[in-house]
Amino acid sequence: MLPDPVLDRSVRLEDDAVLILDRRVFPHRVEWVAARSDVEVAAAIRDMVTQSLGPCYAAAAGLILVARQQAGAAPGTAWAALRTAGERLTAARPTNNIVRDVVAAVMEELSGLSSDASTAEIVATASRAAAAQDERYRERSRALARYAVALVDDGARILTHCWMDTYLIEFVRAADEAGKRYRYVATETRPYLQGARLTAHTLAEMGQDVTLITDGMAAAVLSPLSTLAVDALVTAADRVSMDGHVFNKVGTLGAAVAAHAFEVPYYAFIHAPDPQAPKAGDVVVEERDGAEVLSTQGIRTASPLVTRGHYPAFDVTPPRFVTRIVTDRGAFEPSRVAEYWDAGKA
Amino acid sequence: MLPDPVLDRSVRLEDDAVLILDRRVFPHRVEWVAARSDVEVAAAIRDMVTQSLGPCYAAAAGLILVARQQAGAAPGTAWAALRTAGERLTAARPTNNIVRDVVAAVMEELSGLSSDASTAEIVATASRAAAAQDERYRERSRALARYAVALVDDGARILTHCWMDTYLIEFVRAADEAGKRYRYVATETRPYLQGARLTAHTLAEMGQDVTLITDGMAAAVLSPLSTLAVDALVTAADRVSMDGHVFNKVGTLGAAVAAHAFEVPYYAFIHAPDPQAPKAGDVVVEERDGAEVLSTQGIRTASPLVTRGHYPAFDVTPPRFVTRIVTDRGAFEPSRVAEYWDAGKA
Repeated sequence: MLPDPVLDRSVRLEDDAVLILDRRVFPHRVEWVAARSDVEVAAAIRDMVTQSLGPCYAAAAGLILVARQQAGAAPGTAWAALRTAGERLTAARPTNNIVRDVVAAVMEELSGLSSDASTAEIVATASRAAAAQDERYRERSRALARYAVALVDDGARILTHCWMDTYLIEFVRAADEAGKRYRYVATETRPYLQGARLTAHTLAEMGQDVTLITDGMAAAVLSPLSTLAVDALVTAADRVSMDGHVFNKVGTLGAAVAAHAFEVPYYAFIHAPDPQAPKAGDVVVEERDGAEVLSTQGIRTASPLVTRGHYPAFDVTPPRFVTRIVTDRGAFEPSRVAEYWDAGKA
Repeated sequence: MLPDPVLDRSVRLEDDAVLILDRRVFPHRVEWVAARSDVEVAAAIRDMVTQSLGPCYAAAAGLILVARQQAGAAPGTAWAALRTAGERLTAARPTNNIVRDVVAAVMEELSGLSSDASTAEIVATASRAAAAQDERYRERSRALARYAVALVDDGARILTHCWMDTYLIEFVRAADEAGKRYRYVATETRPYLQGARLTAHTLAEMGQDVTLITDGMAAAVLSPLSTLAVDALVTAADRVSMDGHVFNKVGTLGAAVAAHAFEVPYYAFIHAPDPQAPKAGDVVVEERDGAEVLSTQGIRTASPLVTRGHYPAFDVTPPRFVTRIVTDRGAFEPSRVAEYWDAGKA
């Protein structure tokens, strides 16, 4: 058995709060942000306290917290509070659809209640549905990871970008179960350094061989001339449109284009393509505060004369640069990823 | 007239020392390293006190310093000291050929002296030859910049990577003289942040419009989907082999491949291709200490569990990803850059 990394359980539900591991400072500092309402959970998501799949777990826990807080309220009030919470949580991270899906699943369960349901029934249903979503995301990630490991040979050196969260942890576990051992090259992923802090840390915690590079070195290690030449590029995707475009942390596009140029396969991981995004243009791409680029972990790195940074949080990789989109129902050619939804219920 | 940036004159020759602006900390701190011998100049080059074209100016000044220090010596001793200095300086930065060329030009002048030349003649010849090399590099950069400006339309938004030194300063001046105004997007260029510190600073000093991005965002701004979509990619080259491969700061390859994929022209600037490097394989690519990747300006940025970084200082861009190589004799298709040497003496 491999050791469990800290980030495997980075959201904890307490009696009166959701504790969210602050990924902005981990692992240099291990701090948990206590969110005591849906407003505070949404703020933590928006402020990047948690990211990647973290908002999914935070949203699920946030809905359970809000449900509990309705215990003494009238049924109509409880309903309204949960609906408002769902809208707030969904709006906190528009490019990534997992929060939206968690909220939608809980709302669907609630809509199955009869119109004279008691507050206790509403609370219990919402809590159960939210908890089930958390477990469902983990189980789907395990399925996805098994399909991905089947694509990558034992001994391969894998380049990854940013932080793949549960996908990465389950990928490492699935490789171990399949008797495969990989070596990892992680980009540091400026400006938040998710690669240097979260990915490289988690891989080291799990006893994996990991080498760190800067973001500008991705193409170099994808080139056959590299002394550290990689065999595959693997990233998560925040969203995949039905026409096979991959939305992920900025930097993914450059790595994918280079992988394609040097004939290295690129596998993008996501549970499922988003049926609400038929085309790339249907996805809102967040631009974050450009000032983030001017500093590193709170310390000014750019010249004091420079006043403007640009921070597109995500980039869009067209399907021609993607080898396979790996889902919980198998690996799809990007041009055929819409067939995921023909494959029957997971 | 545009303001002169500090980095236009980053090497100063004093009576008993070469003062070299420390580019590792500029502009956060303005510190000059005093090198009092060829050994100290070579160490400053090796330790990255100066880089890009800086080693050219430092080597020229270093040779003048060594020549002066031979004033009381026997002619044979002066000769030997200059030859040793030349070898030391050349060895300090193997991927970049400009130090080698400066040294070779000075040695060639010296070899024109008669065998009974006095120490005074040797000292005067070496000093004059080294000073001429400094001015020659600036003049050639001005010629190159005029050819480059002819390729880029007024109003263009230009992406650049790392620090182009005299090429950049002369490019901005040449655009101004041609009545063109560009907007610049600079990558920060980890791990040393030459883009965030040197390029963005110098452009701001010269009154240019500049926006900073992280290295991982280069492909995103080269994509037509970007809200900051660029019209051209422009970088210096540390070396160009006669078969059209561009050696430059790691990160150039990824930007070039993305530019090619999105049909944005990529112009690489270098005075001349290197006739001593017929093919890409003839160039030694430096790997620097991987620990540099684990920190940012001396502060640990990677997880403490991560023990290994990888730092290929340069990458190699194949000619198929380069639109033109711009030299002091005009712009060449990369596959035809060897014709530079057919074009007659500059």
